[in-house]
Amino acid sequence: MGKRIVIALGGNALGNNLSEQMIAVKHTSKAIVDLIEEGHQVIVSHGNGPQVGMIHKAMSQYVKNDATQTPIPLSVCVAMSQGYIGYDLQSALREELLSRRIEKPVSTILTQVVVDENDPAFQKPTKPIGEFLSKEDADVLIAQGENLMEDAGRGWRRVVASPKPVDIVEIDSIRTLVEAGQVVVACGGGGIPVVREGSGLKGAAAVIDKDFASCKMAELVGADCLIILTAVEKVAIHFGKPNQEWLSTLTPEEARKHMADGQFAPGSMLPKVEAAVEFAESGPGRYALITLLEKAKDGIAGKTGTTIR
Amino acid sequence: MGKRIVIALGGNALGNNLSEQMIAVKHTSKAIVDLIEEGHQVIVSHGNGPQVGMIHKAMSQYVKNDATQTPIPLSVCVAMSQGYIGYDLQSALREELLSRRIEKPVSTILTQVVVDENDPAFQKPTKPIGEFLSKEDADVLIAQGENLMEDAGRGWRRVVASPKPVDIVEIDSIRTLVEAGQVVVACGGGGIPVVREGSGLKGAAAVIDKDFASCKMAELVGADCLIILTAVEKVAIHFGKPNQEWLSTLTPEEARKHMADGQFAPGSMLPKVEAAVEFAESGPGRYALITLLEKAKDGIAGKTGTTIR
Repeated sequence: MGKRIVIALGGNALGNNLSEQMIAVKHTSKAIVDLIEEGHQVIVSHGNGPQVGMIHKAMSQYVKNDATQTPIPLSVCVAMSQGYIGYDLQSALREELLSRRIEKPVSTILTQVVVDENDPAFQKPTKPIGEFLSKEDADVLIAQGENLMEDAGRGWRRVVASPKPVDIVEIDSIRTLVEAGQVVVACGGGGIPVVREGSGLKGAAAVIDKDFASCKMAELVGADCLIILTAVEKVAIHFGKPNQEWLSTLTPEEARKHMADGQFAPGSMLPKVEAAVEFAESGPGRYALITLLEKAKDGIAGKTGTTIR
Repeated sequence: MGKRIVIALGGNALGNNLSEQMIAVKHTSKAIVDLIEEGHQVIVSHGNGPQVGMIHKAMSQYVKNDATQTPIPLSVCVAMSQGYIGYDLQSALREELLSRRIEKPVSTILTQVVVDENDPAFQKPTKPIGEFLSKEDADVLIAQGENLMEDAGRGWRRVVASPKPVDIVEIDSIRTLVEAGQVVVACGGGGIPVVREGSGLKGAAAVIDKDFASCKMAELVGADCLIILTAVEKVAIHFGKPNQEWLSTLTPEEARKHMADGQFAPGSMLPKVEAAVEFAESGPGRYALITLLEKAKDGIAGKTGTTIR
């Protein structure tokens, strides 16, 4: 019996430049089409960390040197990254489907994700983006009112808020295509961050975590399963220690206990487990799976990965 | 009785930088929502001349100075321009609809347009893109095998092929959304140009004329009308001369005669009239309208513009 599945790909898994991306999307598409071939409806979301960093840097340098241009905010760079990644991803998915004689339209929907302008994350930006700077260059920007932080000994970087997703603007369009049996790429990079302003929306200087955005999309399209792909086959506690233990299943209660014990790294496994718990608790029968790309098919078959339900 | 309408906006009408674009999309959205308010189904396409030029230049400069990056071809820059423009356009359309209490989902579909790799246009690139260069800089690139041309006394520019659209890859997704009563932005910048390669597609170093791409989309979605917006209210013969004559209607035969007489400027009014004729002849009852943005509503009501049928 086919399930409705949202599958969230990491931005890092898509490579650090266009040549790497073109190889990565082919590899990724095989694993996704494995699920489609088994009769599942699949909605694909993806991160954009390295890609939006590159685009933001390129556009910032360009507008600085061209007096006819005006600044291009992060929200617009996210929109551009959805084009940059979505094009390659939808092409590779379509080609992989056709190579298996599956006729299914594939498309990418530019997606805006609403965040709350009163989200406490705006008071305490923590998400590093873009290039590494020297302390001297960072001090200049800090004096100008920008937020910068030292990032793991690698230099100083601009940090932006990472607020929680509240709603997905294009959800009706995504749902319409899914219900027509089509494959949709949406919520790229966690979505273009926007806040409500009157009857309209305006771009926010933020980056939305793609796992939380994917969880929100999975809830809103009525998915049965949220697959969060990562670099390990299963979630572990005591990760990297002698008493490391791989987990095949987790209840929300167990997951909360492990989170309270600091078992999962912030910015890495922690948001994935948080998003998985949120989705598992959002409706009856819903569950999340955290695993490797190559294990997604076996994970859905119950053979591996960590299932949260 | 509501019509199904494809409306093609010029890239120049969207401004030369992001600040101009954000103003232009609001203005444009009012005219488009006027049509929706009258009960028409509207699919929006747009040019991207200034925008893709800017993005292509920014990305080219960036990858030249960062050894970890690889070149970003024109097709990927078109995809990025669909994000850059589509985001602002869909936001403005949504806001204008809501301000009139019309609840209609709006979305942008990343669109690939297939061209024939044997299209004679590839043998004779004529479409100037990107920055203006000195003769000296141009000569260096020509010696490297690039195609450059002197552009109207303003300097030398890279020229690319402008082949005819053959098919639209995401047409099923566009049609599904239109039939669900939604507003769709698609075929931005004439679409991401791709050629067939086995069961897949690969990006082509080309720019597809947005009027021809819009005509192809209008044919494939079964539109009743194709509106091509331009800088004049009506098409004229003997344009700018003492015997100038504005035309309210044109039959395909009349249009062909005027084209043969050289009445319409290549790269300007000529492709618009050609696309209009092609659409008008593509099925019974179909017609095209060439007019100003501000006159689109009056044009559909038969009060102004040039109707080709």
